[in-house]
Parts: sequence; C-alpha cells; structure tokens
Amino acid sequence: LTSKLPHVGTTIFTKMTMLANEQQALNLSQGFPDFETDPKLVQLVSKAMEQGHNQYAPMIGAQALRDTIAKKYREVYDVAVDATAELTVTSGGTQAIFTAIATVVRPQDEVIIFEPAYDCYAPTIELFGGKVVPVRLLAPDFQIDWDYVATLINSKTRLIIINNPNNPTGKVLGREELIKLGDLLASTTALLLSDEVYEHIVFDGVSPQSVLEIPTLRERSFVIASFGKLLHTTGWKIGYCIAPPQLTQEFRKVHQFNVFSVNTPMQFAIAAYLEDISYVKGLSDFFERKRNLLKDGLRGSRFKILPCEGTYFLNIDYSAISQEKEFEFACSLTRQHKIATIPLSAFYKEATNQQVLRVCFAKKDETLLKAVEILNKV
Amino acid sequence: LTSKLPHVGTTIFTKMTMLANEQQALNLSQGFPDFETDPKLVQLVSKAMEQGHNQYAPMIGAQALRDTIAKKYREVYDVAVDATAELTVTSGGTQAIFTAIATVVRPQDEVIIFEPAYDCYAPTIELFGGKVVPVRLLAPDFQIDWDYVATLINSKTRLIIINNPNNPTGKVLGREELIKLGDLLASTTALLLSDEVYEHIVFDGVSPQSVLEIPTLRERSFVIASFGKLLHTTGWKIGYCIAPPQLTQEFRKVHQFNVFSVNTPMQFAIAAYLEDISYVKGLSDFFERKRNLLKDGLRGSRFKILPCEGTYFLNIDYSAISQEKEFEFACSLTRQHKIATIPLSAFYKEATNQQVLRVCFAKKDETLLKAVEILNKV
Ligand SMILES: CSCCC(=O)C(=O)O
Ligand SMILES: CSCCC(=O)C(=O)O
Repeated sequence: LTSKLPHVGTTIFTKMTMLANEQQALNLSQGFPDFETDPKLVQLVSKAMEQGHNQYAPMIGAQALRDTIAKKYREVYDVAVDATAELTVTSGGTQAIFTAIATVVRPQDEVIIFEPAYDCYAPTIELFGGKVVPVRLLAPDFQIDWDYVATLINSKTRLIIINNPNNPTGKVLGREELIKLGDLLASTTALLLSDEVYEHIVFDGVSPQSVLEIPTLRERSFVIASFGKLLHTTGWKIGYCIAPPQLTQEFRKVHQFNVFSVNTPMQFAIAAYLEDISYVKGLSDFFERKRNLLKDGLRGSRFKILPCEGTYFLNIDYSAISQEKEFEFACSLTRQHKIATIPLSAFYKEATNQQVLRVCFAKKDETLLKAVEILNKV
Repeated sequence: LTSKLPHVGTTIFTKMTMLANEQQALNLSQGFPDFETDPKLVQLVSKAMEQGHNQYAPMIGAQALRDTIAKKYREVYDVAVDATAELTVTSGGTQAIFTAIATVVRPQDEVIIFEPAYDCYAPTIELFGGKVVPVRLLAPDFQIDWDYVATLINSKTRLIIINNPNNPTGKVLGREELIKLGDLLASTTALLLSDEVYEHIVFDGVSPQSVLEIPTLRERSFVIASFGKLLHTTGWKIGYCIAPPQLTQEFRKVHQFNVFSVNTPMQFAIAAYLEDISYVKGLSDFFERKRNLLKDGLRGSRFKILPCEGTYFLNIDYSAISQEKEFEFACSLTRQHKIATIPLSAFYKEATNQQVLRVCFAKKDETLLKAVEILNKV
C-alpha cells in the first residue's frame, strides 16, 4: 500500500501531550481545559440519556440544538440562520472542516490557507487532490497583505480558509479586513471556509464576530464552530457548519455518509444548557482573566510576549534565551523544566524558526501560576 | 457549485423515518431499538463525566476501551488484536467505513460491493474517485457466485466490501465462504473491508464470526464494528476499526484529520460496561426471540418470510398482496396501515423490484405484536 498522505505523521498535539504525560510535565500544549465541566451541563446529559435520547439523532442534528444555535446567532450577531436549510450538527469542528473541504475540493483545485495554520487543513485538502496555496504570515504581527492574496486568486481557486480568532496566533481579523476579503472574492467563484471555533473568546472589549455578518462573505461561506471550546468539553465532539442552502445540501451529502449523525444525548444537553445565552457572553471575560494572569506573570521573565486578541493561546518568543530550533526547544522545556508547549513551526508547511512557542491558558489559575513560576526560571 | 455527488439524495432511512413520524406510524424502517438502554450503562457515562473525562480522548481511542475490545476478540474469537497498533476507535461504524475507504481508494480504483448493499458504501467510493463494481444478489437466497466474483478482480481492484451478517438480507457468510474469498484474494493486491457491525446478532446456534479468524483475510482487512448495535445505543456513535499495523497507520492519518478523536465519556463507560463479556454472549438469544416473535406472528399473513440468519432485520415478500413497486408499496403501507419499513430496492444502484420489504425487529415485544397485528391485516 502506498500512502495517500505520505508526509503526515502523528499530530504535534498528540506528540507533545504524550511527551508531557511521559515527563509528568505541566501540559500547556494541546488546547484543552484542565478544569471541570459545569456539573449542570453534565446533569443535562444524564437527564437526556435517562429520557431515552440514545438512538440516532436526525442526520442534520437534533432540532432543539439547531434552534438554540440559530437563536445564538440572532442574539449575538443579529443574523438570521435557517436552522433547517443552513445548519448541520457535526462531530466537532474538525469533522465539519473535513466535510466542507470534501464537499467542494476536487483534484487540481487550489485552496489558499494562511500560515501558521491549524494542522488539519492542508492534509485534508491534499486527500481530495487539491493543491494547498499557503500564505506565510510571520511573528509578531502575522499581518495579511491582501494585495498579495489577490494575486494568488485565479479560476482554479476553489476555497480560501480563514480561522478567526486565529489558532495559533491569537489574532483577530477585524470587520474591515473581512470586508476587504469580501470585496476580493466578490468577482470570483472562490468559496470561503471560516473556522470560528474560538468566536466567543475575544479580549479587550472587542465583540465576537462572524463572517455571517458580512453579506458578500456569507453567500459563499462554510462557517464552522464548536461547543468544545465554548463549554470546556473538547471530548464531547459536537460542532456545526452553517452555509447557504445549496452549499448545505452538498455538505450533507458527504456528512451523511461520513458519520451520518452525531451523539444524541450531548446534543439535547447542550441545547438545554444554552437556552440562556448569558453563559456565552461571559466567556471572553473568563478567559481574558486567565490570559492576563499568564501574560502579567511573565512580565519579568526572559520571554517576549506576543499580542493575544483572542483564543486561549498565548505565544511567547524565546530568542533571548536560546538559539535552539522550536521543536527541539519545546522538547527540552518539557524534559528539563517539566512544561509542555507547542512549537509555532508545527503550523507551517515549510520549516520556519521564529523561536516562538504557543502556550495554552485554558487552565486552572493554579496551573497557570505554576507555569509562570517555571517559565520565569528559564 | 457542481455537485461531487449528483446522484445522492436523502438516505432512505431518513426519508422513511420522517414519513413514519409524519404519519404517526409504527417505525420498523430505520434500524434502531425503541427500548431502553441499560440504566447501568447510562450511569457509567454519568460517572465518567463526573470523574472529569470530558476532554479529548487520545486520537486512537481511550486505552481502557481499546483493551476491552482486544479482550473481547480474545474471549469470543480466540484472536489476538494489538490494541495499540491495530485498533482505532471511531465515531460509529459509518465513520470507520468512510475513513477506511478514504485511506485506500484513489481515482480509477475499482471497489467490488455486493448488492443489496448498505447505502454508504457506493457514494463514499465515488467521493474518492473510485469506481463501484456491484455484484447483484437476488432474493430469496442472495447467493454469491464466487467464480463470477473472481472474473471481476483485476489489477485495479483496490477493495472488496462485505457486510457479515448482512444488512439488509440477514444472511451470514459461513467460514467456508470466507475461506473461499481468502483464496480468491491471496494472489491479488485487493484489500478487504469487512463490515461486522451485527457480528453478535446471529441465530439458530451459529457462532459469531470475524474475518480476523482467517489469516489470509486478516492480513488485508479493515474490520469494522460498532457499539450502537451491541448496546442499543445507535445515537452514541462509538465504533472501531481493526486492521494490520501498516493499514492502521494509514487509516489514522485520515482519522486524525476527519474527527481527531471520539466522545470521551462514552468510551470510558463502554469500557467499564463490557468488562464482563457475558452481555455480548447473550445478545443473539435476545434478538432471536424477537425475530421468532415477528416471524411466527406472520405465519398466517399473506407475506412470505425470507430466511434471517443474523442482524435485526427480517425481509418479507409481498408479491401475493400487490404488484406495486417497493418504494410505492412501502409508502402506501406507512400511509394506510401506519407501519413503516424499508424497500429492498433502496440497497441497489440499478432499480430492482423483488417485492421485498425490510422490517426492523429491534423493538419492544409490544411494538412487534402491534406490527404483527397490522401486517396480518394487509
Ligand atoms: C484536536 S487536538 C488539538 C487541539 C487544539 O485545538 C489545539 O491545540 O490547537
Ligand atoms: C444510519 S441510519 C441507518 C440505520 C441502519 O443501520 C439501517 O437501518 O440499516
């Protein structure tokens, strides 16, 4: 058997988490909370199971959950989403991204991605015969040159993928940049995949934002989000995809044969939990406190802190400490200082060495204080 | 956007279940139980959540669950499965099938499937550019002519898919037939996908059986199974794929970017629940009683009962009642007699009309008795 994905190894998240476990190190690598899930939410799952919600959900998702999601878009963004024709519940954001790419990318199609890029985009594009066209953005600003992007778009450009707020950079593309992108795409046949799984984690008074608010983008977008980041339940694997009816119809053709449907009791529980939208609105404050705890704690260290406008990742520059390459330095930190992080280079196709590490701060204050203590000694 | 799957509509299962709900009909169409999930199992999920198992499971599946699965293969089949190198937990059998096909099928590859065939095989093959080579089997015996199959195998044959016990026919391929298949494949480069999601539902004293028991098949097989059918939890979406290490390695490359990992608390709960394997061993008796209830109940009806050696589906021939085509007859039954079934023709690429309907008997005795009453009046 010759591999269809010869360049793919184990993901960096699995690698670093395994190393962290082996070394009994503080694990700030893979993005997941180390604090408890709200017992109320857990009880709602138990209740759903006891009420007998244990068989196949509808292929497009439980009605109750789709209605709750539509309500959220109305209340947070003042945007109307048709819960029947435009929304499909998926097995996490990852399956939604995979399925959207599977739906539209054909052999020879080009897909523009912005690097550093979340690691599932490129191999999925390649699996469907597409060609990845990476736009490399560099620390500390990761600024997009839209004029340059314009030169990359041609008749083969099937899809552009953005991730906003961005994992790993923590950058937020503002409304103006999104409108610029909309103008750029207006005269093309390119579609957009907007990975918005961190939408409700934005800081310093900025409001959450979705490309659904921008009509030129909305009409050509798969918008993907996830409850794992919202509810501190990365292991429950519930997400969704919103797209115009025609795109949704094609998306579902793939979805129904990929997973058919998604965990039923969790869908009912999340629907009930989010009836009151105030939880969603409080999430940014919750994580902004944690970001500040880490950021302020490192002020006296030899690390340089990069800006962090959203997500639960903070990037730190270690160039004042070591000339080692990122992966090697991340491994040494784990082995010697018992703290695991993610090398930024893992998010680029062609090696870079910007001497930056990504640190996850979706952690208990206690964990973050320990991290601060360790990193201050490096 | 031109569709990548122009011929795909809504699955027959969704269609018939929607019609059943609309008509408030007894729903014996889509295969799912209408009885309760064991409260003990439900409690184990609650316990796993309370213990904090709510974040990403390992990409390959929780160790506890993989160990439990390996133990099952040892105890039921006396077969050793390497839980680390050969086993991957998936989001149900469907995602395992999709991922296995994605792993090996390239444009122009041929894949042999046996019709009637579960409806996800063909579109998934086509999505990856493969060519479906259907072998049509007909009621009432659905006998495979292996000499004919041999003539279909050539250097382009990448994969053969079997489903044993078979949904929808209820047929079980015996050991001799499997050995014949092994001999057929021994000199070829074709791989096998063995969909064994109904493995523990076999009747009349026959033992469960897996291609893992047959060395010539094992070395080239993706074996797929699911806990949905085993634990009456089709909505929990936990399944798995067993394959030799090299195939597993490639399978995981796709799996990690398709869903990354699978619902964590359900994995821990199932692992704990199946520590004692006796539950698994009792499942055939449980469903054999139900099959007999339905079969014997229809003895006086105008339907002809087809053989049913396994699965929870019974096929009934209505040629003595109507000359209507299957889909039309199934719809009339739902509308007029308030009972929904699946037309056998839904499992063929090119229309057939054998005047056979598939009836799901994974139902409460009460439901089955009601079905018997209705069907006896038709
Ligand atoms: C799917 S494992 C990766 C988790 C994550 O989102 C991240 O660490 O970036
Ligand atoms: C995934 S819905 C179909 C359920 C099933 O296995 C069947 O009815 O055959």
